[in-house]
Amino acid sequence: MIRIVYLLVRPEGMTPSKFAEECQVHYDMSHDVPALHKYEVRLVNEEPSDTHVPYLDIGPFDAVAECWFEGSEKYEEYLASDIRKAWFEHGKTFIGQLKPIYTQELC
Amino acid sequence: MIRIVYLLVRPEGMTPSKFAEECQVHYDMSHDVPALHKYEVRLVNEEPSDTHVPYLDIGPFDAVAECWFEGSEKYEEYLASDIRKAWFEHGKTFIGQLKPIYTQELC
Repeated sequence: MIRIVYLLVRPEGMTPSKFAEECQVHYDMSHDVPALHKYEVRLVNEEPSDTHVPYLDIGPFDAVAECWFEGSEKYEEYLASDIRKAWFEHGKTFIGQLKPIYTQELC
Repeated sequence: MIRIVYLLVRPEGMTPSKFAEECQVHYDMSHDVPALHKYEVRLVNEEPSDTHVPYLDIGPFDAVAECWFEGSEKYEEYLASDIRKAWFEHGKTFIGQLKPIYTQELC
């Protein structure tokens, strides 16, 4: 399974409630995107810095999202899809900054 | 469900393979931690910067982890547990820097 985690920051001047609303729209749109096995987006509600190991001082973030794909063929199909392109166009309207992190299982 | 995402950076001087090995040990230990509903840890294999919206220039990261708890009572039980404390002690041996992100569902 290919899994990509995304950290999202809302655009300057966008309220948290408008951002949350657009996250919901983006989530609803995800169901029509071909070859996307699963999509999740969650809002950030706390970023505590009192960690038991040295704190990594980054953020704040507004949402964490994740995309799942069954394999590289499905991922290519997703990339080529016009519905996926329209989904990304919607992303441009409410994502101020984005950090993608491609992950892999422990072997 | 309480869900906390963690971004992990390995300590300076630790090799990626040693870090991966310790992530596996940490994962194996997680099964004994009381009130922890689920734990995942995945290695980072790519952090592309050619995003369709402005790139959030942070990183690099070495792993993304996530903890699930069934609710705040379970989370308190987890915090109070000696096994959890020993698990965090193991975390100190291989996590160089840590960023916790407490998330919530879209309403």
